[in-house]
Amino acid sequence: MFQELVHAKAFQDYLETTSFPKTPQHLYDPIRYILSLAGKRIRPLLVLMGAELFDESTVEHALPASAAIEFFHNFSLIHDDIMDVAPLRRGKPTVHQKWDANVAILSGDALLIKAYQELAKCPIDKIPALLQLFNTTSLEVCEGQQYDMDFEGRAHVGEAEYIDMIRLKTSVLLGCALQMGAIIAGAEEPSQTLLYDFGVNLGVAFQLQDDILDVYGNPESFGKQIGGDILSNKKTILFVKLQELISPDDQSELTYLLRQTIDTEPEKIEKMMNLYAKYDIQTLAIYQKEKFTTIAYEKLENIPVEDYKKQALFSLADALMHRVR
Amino acid sequence: MFQELVHAKAFQDYLETTSFPKTPQHLYDPIRYILSLAGKRIRPLLVLMGAELFDESTVEHALPASAAIEFFHNFSLIHDDIMDVAPLRRGKPTVHQKWDANVAILSGDALLIKAYQELAKCPIDKIPALLQLFNTTSLEVCEGQQYDMDFEGRAHVGEAEYIDMIRLKTSVLLGCALQMGAIIAGAEEPSQTLLYDFGVNLGVAFQLQDDILDVYGNPESFGKQIGGDILSNKKTILFVKLQELISPDDQSELTYLLRQTIDTEPEKIEKMMNLYAKYDIQTLAIYQKEKFTTIAYEKLENIPVEDYKKQALFSLADALMHRVR
Repeated sequence: MFQELVHAKAFQDYLETTSFPKTPQHLYDPIRYILSLAGKRIRPLLVLMGAELFDESTVEHALPASAAIEFFHNFSLIHDDIMDVAPLRRGKPTVHQKWDANVAILSGDALLIKAYQELAKCPIDKIPALLQLFNTTSLEVCEGQQYDMDFEGRAHVGEAEYIDMIRLKTSVLLGCALQMGAIIAGAEEPSQTLLYDFGVNLGVAFQLQDDILDVYGNPESFGKQIGGDILSNKKTILFVKLQELISPDDQSELTYLLRQTIDTEPEKIEKMMNLYAKYDIQTLAIYQKEKFTTIAYEKLENIPVEDYKKQALFSLADALMHRVR
Repeated sequence: MFQELVHAKAFQDYLETTSFPKTPQHLYDPIRYILSLAGKRIRPLLVLMGAELFDESTVEHALPASAAIEFFHNFSLIHDDIMDVAPLRRGKPTVHQKWDANVAILSGDALLIKAYQELAKCPIDKIPALLQLFNTTSLEVCEGQQYDMDFEGRAHVGEAEYIDMIRLKTSVLLGCALQMGAIIAGAEEPSQTLLYDFGVNLGVAFQLQDDILDVYGNPESFGKQIGGDILSNKKTILFVKLQELISPDDQSELTYLLRQTIDTEPEKIEKMMNLYAKYDIQTLAIYQKEKFTTIAYEKLENIPVEDYKKQALFSLADALMHRVR
């Protein structure tokens, strides 16, 4: 993991060189704020690792692209948080909470444009290809967010639809990050596609794992309240699987539980878990997660590059998927 | 004006080829809707005229850039209307009114990305320059909108600040549109800059004229209620000039008027106009408008291209500025 620390440092140093104007304050302060609440910064790391996989000497040239991806991700957080009326992000007040919705809309817009400004700093011969990939991906992320909001208002969501939604909302950006690195390193198109597919499939697997851990995770290591998704009636892989398989007899119990809160039904979580257990939902969900993980690893294996160069990406994937090898 | 109709038709035909996906409906229906409320479409026309000025044969290649500009403009309308809580746009319900604020935020985001998708369709060797200009301009438009909102909450705004705000919020996009056409036509950089400056100065002059007509326009031809800006205490060139020049004795009258509505003071418009008359504000504002118009025309004159090729742009400027020559 030493090389990842080197990348993280390089990215942080690069970010510090891209300063934002002082005024108008209400436009740029929220951008400085959201970027200061640094998350895991997986996405910019993926850009640099994507470049490193094919040509170590190009990692430096991939820094603007890694900033573009991080800026886009933070833009989407600012706007999603308005739409989801979320009070907290990374444990701190969200932008619309700290300022107001108008400030969050406009500073989000500005951050999206700043992402394109970073794109414009990439190696000039690579800009057209990077722009096309970035545009397609950005639009897909918007589509994913729209489907996610649509699903909230719907009684029934199919498993395929659900997986397509998480693919769009969260996974394509991981594939895009890796492929942008590959483009900058001058990789052949088939290799670019394999690396993109590795990222997308790993992203779907990671999101499915997140759904599973919400119910079956270790409360100490998961870091969130167990059963939170059940309490909020969130559509998850567990929920859509249950809806698909539930018998007419048990449907009334499910309908009852969906109308309850923790106050009207203190055992809402336990009772929902009983339904999951009856239909062996955990096993089925883990099976799906494994399926996407396996595809992801196969894609990476198939890239025509020496194995030792892939170790960093395999290790990162292992860490994300809590795998031991 | 015949050539302008040809451009308008070419643009409309091009727009009809760029179809939007059917789903998610809540993402793409609002985009189809705002684009169907076609405004004057001055901006895409400017892109095509900018290309035509330098090389007629490149007009066709400038169509994606003209769509990028029109998409960006409509994105900014969708988001500005949320921030301004505007119920109507071009006489029809705004997007956030017809759907809701979340739909307006996300479909606006998608339309901004679609603008960049059009940019990616431009002649490949021109993309880096176009992207850079478009990014700078887009960010300036956001800054202008933020200053505009900031000014609403402030008691005093200086004239220079006010003009800088309208330059950013509305005028740089006109300059950008023209320059994008010039870039696609392969114009030299000094010529590009002259054309950009023509657009920006004309845009400022046009906005100043709009401020003046709000109070001194012919009610029949202006198409809006006379004195609307006075009733809403809007910062305009007239208002900032008056603030600059008003004597301590008259300040109390101004302060009084700013606290009144049409109900508490039926003569608010007339009384404000008396103050404007006392300080000869109309003349001073017209002087400013003429100054920017003159600069605009000079910039266009100085472009090293045969005069007859500039006639279309001079005629458009005359029409916008109600000039007779």
